Amino acid sequence: MLSDIEIAQAATLQPIYDIARQLGLAPADLHLYGNHMAKLTQATVNHLHQQPIRAKLILMTAISPTPAGEGKTTTTIGLTDALNKAGYHALACLREPSMGPVFGMKGGATGGGYAQLVPMENINLHFTGDFHAITAANNLLAALVDNHIYHGNALQFDTISWRRCMDVNDRALRRITINQPIFYDTGFDITVASEVMAIFCLATDLADLTHRLGRIQVGISSQGTPIYASDLQAEGAMTALLKEAFQPNLVQTLEGSPALVHGGPFANIAHGCNSLVATQTALRLADYVVTEAGFGADLGAEKFMDIKCRQSGLRPDMAVVVATVRALKYHGGVEVADVNTENLSALSVGMANLKKHIDNLRQHFGLPVVVALNHFTADTDAEVALIQSAVASWGSSLHICRHWAAGGAGALTLAHAVATLAQQPATPTLLYDNALSLTEKLRTIAQSLYGAKDVTFGEQAAQQLHALAEASQGLPVCIAKTQYSLSCDTKLRNVPVGHSLHVRELRLSRGAGFVVAVCGDMMTMPGLPKQPASSRISVDANGRISGLS
Amino acid sequence: MLSDIEIAQAATLQPIYDIARQLGLAPADLHLYGNHMAKLTQATVNHLHQQPIRAKLILMTAISPTPAGEGKTTTTIGLTDALNKAGYHALACLREPSMGPVFGMKGGATGGGYAQLVPMENINLHFTGDFHAITAANNLLAALVDNHIYHGNALQFDTISWRRCMDVNDRALRRITINQPIFYDTGFDITVASEVMAIFCLATDLADLTHRLGRIQVGISSQGTPIYASDLQAEGAMTALLKEAFQPNLVQTLEGSPALVHGGPFANIAHGCNSLVATQTALRLADYVVTEAGFGADLGAEKFMDIKCRQSGLRPDMAVVVATVRALKYHGGVEVADVNTENLSALSVGMANLKKHIDNLRQHFGLPVVVALNHFTADTDAEVALIQSAVASWGSSLHICRHWAAGGAGALTLAHAVATLAQQPATPTLLYDNALSLTEKLRTIAQSLYGAKDVTFGEQAAQQLHALAEASQGLPVCIAKTQYSLSCDTKLRNVPVGHSLHVRELRLSRGAGFVVAVCGDMMTMPGLPKQPASSRISVDANGRISGLS
Repeated sequence: MLSDIEIAQAATLQPIYDIARQLGLAPADLHLYGNHMAKLTQATVNHLHQQPIRAKLILMTAISPTPAGEGKTTTTIGLTDALNKAGYHALACLREPSMGPVFGMKGGATGGGYAQLVPMENINLHFTGDFHAITAANNLLAALVDNHIYHGNALQFDTISWRRCMDVNDRALRRITINQPIFYDTGFDITVASEVMAIFCLATDLADLTHRLGRIQVGISSQGTPIYASDLQAEGAMTALLKEAFQPNLVQTLEGSPALVHGGPFANIAHGCNSLVATQTALRLADYVVTEAGFGADLGAEKFMDIKCRQSGLRPDMAVVVATVRALKYHGGVEVADVNTENLSALSVGMANLKKHIDNLRQHFGLPVVVALNHFTADTDAEVALIQSAVASWGSSLHICRHWAAGGAGALTLAHAVATLAQQPATPTLLYDNALSLTEKLRTIAQSLYGAKDVTFGEQAAQQLHALAEASQGLPVCIAKTQYSLSCDTKLRNVPVGHSLHVRELRLSRGAGFVVAVCGDMMTMPGLPKQPASSRISVDANGRISGLS
Repeated sequence: MLSDIEIAQAATLQPIYDIARQLGLAPADLHLYGNHMAKLTQATVNHLHQQPIRAKLILMTAISPTPAGEGKTTTTIGLTDALNKAGYHALACLREPSMGPVFGMKGGATGGGYAQLVPMENINLHFTGDFHAITAANNLLAALVDNHIYHGNALQFDTISWRRCMDVNDRALRRITINQPIFYDTGFDITVASEVMAIFCLATDLADLTHRLGRIQVGISSQGTPIYASDLQAEGAMTALLKEAFQPNLVQTLEGSPALVHGGPFANIAHGCNSLVATQTALRLADYVVTEAGFGADLGAEKFMDIKCRQSGLRPDMAVVVATVRALKYHGGVEVADVNTENLSALSVGMANLKKHIDNLRQHFGLPVVVALNHFTADTDAEVALIQSAVASWGSSLHICRHWAAGGAGALTLAHAVATLAQQPATPTLLYDNALSLTEKLRTIAQSLYGAKDVTFGEQAAQQLHALAEASQGLPVCIAKTQYSLSCDTKLRNVPVGHSLHVRELRLSRGAGFVVAVCGDMMTMPGLPKQPASSRISVDANGRISGLS
């Protein structure tokens, strides 16, 4: 069986000009990055955003992730390919991969099997440089803060809250001590967790980008007042660093479907959606836009709705929930080693996780839902039949997908179901009213979506709750918690009961326009595993990479 | 008078395909980055390197830099334009700008006036992402070191010597304390000072790149033996991060001359030359290749010869030394505020600096030399005549250049002189024999080139000299010292006498194949000035930058 990179390297890619032509775009609308990657020019993006929305927006989300794998990205790609194969005009809208996981445990983020984005090596490594631009803008601001203090310039800092970032899994940088110009503790987050990444993904245009960058809070003065990036005149230079990156990237799937891949906050420690600019652009270029929200629906879909849709006014027309037999059995108590063995009773138990996510999407967000069952060869007919009838009894439909093995042809029934359902009128809603207090927002999310009995605050968070009472008014909350559980305890599978959402820390992301609530022992800088994926990667004399996954 | 960025933005650029065609390259030889920047594909580079060298190689160097400005990059560009205007086939080979100075004091590094590389904003900001790739490779290795220790893997570290890097002027990162997995002091260097940058610029091909990366020494084990990047299986993944970047970048001058701009170590804290791959490629694509070595000839030209030429076997055919009346008056004791006032006596004194550099290049490197006088409007006829006759009396020739104001047309006499002289047979030599001890190499450079009476070692350097005695055998030395003086004291202008070269620290760059000698209080991470250039930069709604210089 071929590895993902072998399949990707064996593919014959179409010139990106031809992919663009499918979308009605001319060569002048593109900045090329080689023959197979391009950015849409800012002028083209600005022009398109003046046009009315044409596409139905389909939100791809999933059950709570497990080590058994679900395949949300492959299903996004497979569905897009299937829609195009069936004659609909579809465009995928995805996040860019972070290099942290590429060299760590998870690997890349361009799909797998016959449902991949290509050129996979480039997209997984640097791509068009967007994350590096975000890193550079973030770290220029940090340098300007310390430099201001060093030179004894006008602002008197009492607290420096701005952290540096890097697109790497480097545990040792989580907490560092700076020795000059003053001695203080700080650290690095992974770039996908940076507020600059969030701003990049939520800004409507270059002017809004500059405005949001300027209102980043970097610290508190000795008079107790907030200090902003604009106080350091940083926002212009930061925008200059970001302006090329801010243009959405166009690539293709193995079957030649177009995909806009742009921005990439993680959904556990950040807000989890590709850039608003890419989504807004996509909605003018196709009839169906399939967009992925990271991790499970409790994280990705919630933030997609309550942050991205709230700020932009966008609303999806429906949601697809991805599940696998293996993962549902895992939620039902089966260990990873045994997920390939038929186990109907464990499956019955684990289906509660799927039902909870479907209920959440329908009841709390008003979204029509279908289920995509990402099929694995070990799945038995009895298992599939069990889920299928359960999903039907919940008033939804389940579609078996074999895009991993068969590309778009493997997801045609899903495509037809989606194309039909997305045309039905829906009344999507947001979960909470922005006028609620921060505590009330947190409680609403925890109780309605996570099934928690309450929200608790650690000492630091309790102080911050008080301190941020005014500044957090009217801002949605971005919960940073584990993706592996509906609770904030990684080990609680399926649908935990009796748990509380414990908030350890609150961080105001004033430029992004939300408050981050760090729950449990969540880290905003991952570490590498004992045997990092990097040790298996090599390059031959012609530049061909092997070992990347 | 228009600013550099206004001149650059007003220019009509040629499609990069047309620039490539001048060099005999076809569209298939290029990876485009928009319409005006491209990388030569690895296959094209590999193929060209099989061909015989066709071009004469002209080394552009300068007197000791001053705050009055010399204009080495503008002269490299102006000379290339002039050679092409005169019907010679010329190609410039330059370093990529670092973003540290762009937001700090110096500004960009794409020339000025009517002798500029374009698109200047892109080249100065991110360009094709090469420096970010180098940063990522450097920092992946750092993460792998700490991760190895965290997981208690096989290697036992006593000392971690590998530092992180970033392409920013961030003084606060010079010395940081890491708190986990173990408590230790380390820091960040600016990316242009990283050993990975040096390796990138000295590697002959991808296989050599991988090999050199693997032999980077990252620390010492508790058994006292060196630990290498290859012990962490890091070199394959690092090469994967660098493989796109490793392909040379093609851009154009305002007059449409081709330029390969690739790699960019500073010449004060690193070895100061563009990539070997770019130079080797350039020598197969034109009849004259003009390449710049950073800062004054004591630093840039010395390292060009003793490191790059020594390792590669390349030899230049001649050198051009850039000087200005203003800078020579500054060396003669005039302050910056007064350099526009005629002062023949100060000029006479300051010409000693020019003479010393010419003598060094001729006597110690066997290079034919001409002088390019980069003309400023305040220069008087008497001043120009004084230098002209002096240079003639030294057996060389001086050519007045007005490329800053007039482009290639302003440097035609220099072009004809260079085209003639480069055809004469020359016998370039290296300064020292590699079999000498490290101390003897340092003494040779200090006494022959810098006019120092001796070399002294600080306590740390003395210990390292002993510890590195074996490992440094057969390796050239890379001196990190101020560019502003032939000595290692920034304040000593012109031709200092009676000074010693004080070595503070020695660092083995085993992958790059040299030993770095840090002299004086040299920093490998610059800081920003009191009023950083970043505060003047802004971007309009269409993405047009202003304030970049």
